[in-house]
Amino acid sequence: MKLHFQQADLAESVNIVLKAVPSKTTMPILECILIDSTSGEIRLTANDMELGIETVAEGSIEERGKIALDAKIFSDIVRKLPNGIVTIETDQNQTAVITCEKAKFDIPGKDAEEFAALPEIEKNEYIEISQFSLREVIRQTLFCIAPNENNKLMTGELFEVRNNMLKVVSLDGHRIAIRNLELRGDCSDKKVVIPGKTLNEISKILSGGMDDMVRIYFDTNYLLFVFGRTIVLSRLIDGEYFRIDQMLSSDYETKVVLNRQSFLGSIDRATLLVRESDKMPVILQICDDVLNLQINTMLGSMDEETIVDKTGKDITIGFNPKFLMDALRAIDDEEVSLYFINAKAPCFIRDDKGSYIYLILPVNIR
Amino acid sequence: MKLHFQQADLAESVNIVLKAVPSKTTMPILECILIDSTSGEIRLTANDMELGIETVAEGSIEERGKIALDAKIFSDIVRKLPNGIVTIETDQNQTAVITCEKAKFDIPGKDAEEFAALPEIEKNEYIEISQFSLREVIRQTLFCIAPNENNKLMTGELFEVRNNMLKVVSLDGHRIAIRNLELRGDCSDKKVVIPGKTLNEISKILSGGMDDMVRIYFDTNYLLFVFGRTIVLSRLIDGEYFRIDQMLSSDYETKVVLNRQSFLGSIDRATLLVRESDKMPVILQICDDVLNLQINTMLGSMDEETIVDKTGKDITIGFNPKFLMDALRAIDDEEVSLYFINAKAPCFIRDDKGSYIYLILPVNIR
Repeated sequence: MKLHFQQADLAESVNIVLKAVPSKTTMPILECILIDSTSGEIRLTANDMELGIETVAEGSIEERGKIALDAKIFSDIVRKLPNGIVTIETDQNQTAVITCEKAKFDIPGKDAEEFAALPEIEKNEYIEISQFSLREVIRQTLFCIAPNENNKLMTGELFEVRNNMLKVVSLDGHRIAIRNLELRGDCSDKKVVIPGKTLNEISKILSGGMDDMVRIYFDTNYLLFVFGRTIVLSRLIDGEYFRIDQMLSSDYETKVVLNRQSFLGSIDRATLLVRESDKMPVILQICDDVLNLQINTMLGSMDEETIVDKTGKDITIGFNPKFLMDALRAIDDEEVSLYFINAKAPCFIRDDKGSYIYLILPVNIR
Repeated sequence: MKLHFQQADLAESVNIVLKAVPSKTTMPILECILIDSTSGEIRLTANDMELGIETVAEGSIEERGKIALDAKIFSDIVRKLPNGIVTIETDQNQTAVITCEKAKFDIPGKDAEEFAALPEIEKNEYIEISQFSLREVIRQTLFCIAPNENNKLMTGELFEVRNNMLKVVSLDGHRIAIRNLELRGDCSDKKVVIPGKTLNEISKILSGGMDDMVRIYFDTNYLLFVFGRTIVLSRLIDGEYFRIDQMLSSDYETKVVLNRQSFLGSIDRATLLVRESDKMPVILQICDDVLNLQINTMLGSMDEETIVDKTGKDITIGFNPKFLMDALRAIDDEEVSLYFINAKAPCFIRDDKGSYIYLILPVNIR
């Protein structure tokens, strides 16, 4: 095999597939990037068996062939090569010679036949959204998934297609994030749970804007994202996702409209007095049109008043400050509305259009 | 006590003295910043007994007084307050109330009398250099000190004043860095060893340029740096510094002139094949006007040729690549000259003016 690339093009392609290389594995071949030019295109592939990424690299083929190279060493070398033409050449001993200007690297490769190819999936049903929207919707919900694997379904996100709307849901037992997006065109109803890891990695390689589309294909056990010269294949999480509709309510006793940034600022200041080990709640005391935020810990106490636009009853309620901040950071609106029922019922942060709903359970403060 | 500050002014002053707050100590009072306005100026002080920093903060005094506040909490609060007027007020119970706009913090303080005041030193003899030069000379030499305390003198830098020249020397047993600076004005000869920690911290707070001067006062056991509204007091390291003159030689058998950036780039690429655990040398093979840099490790091999301007004999010599890179990064010149005697003798990188000398011991490659 003999291939030629511009260093920047190769570095970009390697960086994309690198996201699917597992950091720890018992199968050394999975630590490799497959370079395959046998089809006449130069395809780079990485696959950790849950998540696979393949991209077509810009470059020219002098002699077709394929090889698997250790992802870490290969990517480090490509990144640090000078900005010139990079040539990758292999011999019968599976050694790759990488040259660029006067620099020449010899690194041992592995037999490409050992590499686990991405499974073929059916490309019948799909939805299409912009790269920008997919990246945003992931950012606005992914913080809400559970970090550990005690409940596998909680480590993923529900993507539900119904009536040409995409609903994305994540939850961790203390809070729920919901985003609704309108879809263009017709597509049948779908309901899948996508691993959080897939969404995290894909959001890092979605560099396009509002006009660059991602096509998402639905197969029984897999989801396939296709955009630009790249495909991302992810295994789905098995099982029935939580029924969240029964947890949502539009009733409320208190509604507060406030400036998102300044509220975020005051919660952020309050958390200065919280050491990681102790889980002190912030207390919101809403009385007339004043929201008084208080915290009291071993390190000291803090309170801060904000003028708000309140309708309904006065209320005093406690929250994990991190949960409030995560939700407020995920929202772009300048003003947000908080809805309360009582000190033991969940608080909702939602907009009138129904494009987002954040539900947060309160902390018992008595 | 009652004081008022602009948030940005207070944050800047706190950030300066914070550099002298020890990260670990058995004396809780040393974890504090002293705020003392009894003299009519607002002085902030931190002191870890080796290094003390005092700065005069911009602000107004409504009622004089002093208090010691936990540095971490106080600095976190000040940094996160909104950009307005900050008021610090204390009561008889040593509690500080910090208010800014609608935010109000109550934090417990400590008796200012417990705080270890900075020792008074004699201000007779001093030198003066620009903040820029001091920061640069520290950057260009500090990487060469020994990281551990096996030999206390190696953890500091020699500052030697002789004939109106300042010579700064650091070494770690494998390499030596020397910088020479001309001093303005007259001052008597001095020879002190300054702890690396002091130099590291001071270089972070020296923000001034070529026209902002630092005055350095010499006392028996201390050195005092005075610049702007800040003083930094450092204990010196006791003992006779190493005699380096006998290690320096201007004889050579091979001289190589090369482009610093491209040489640095090729050593950087070579180190991609070095895992941290194994200490593989890079080998420089200098033959006619070609320098061939080679490395050969378990991960693969690399070589890269550079055209150089050589005088004298051919030579093959091995180095720890990190030592070469550290020295090359500390130099600003576009072209550098390397001087060799033989494969077992130190290599020198130096300029003709004598403003810098870097000595690096080679690694045995046979």
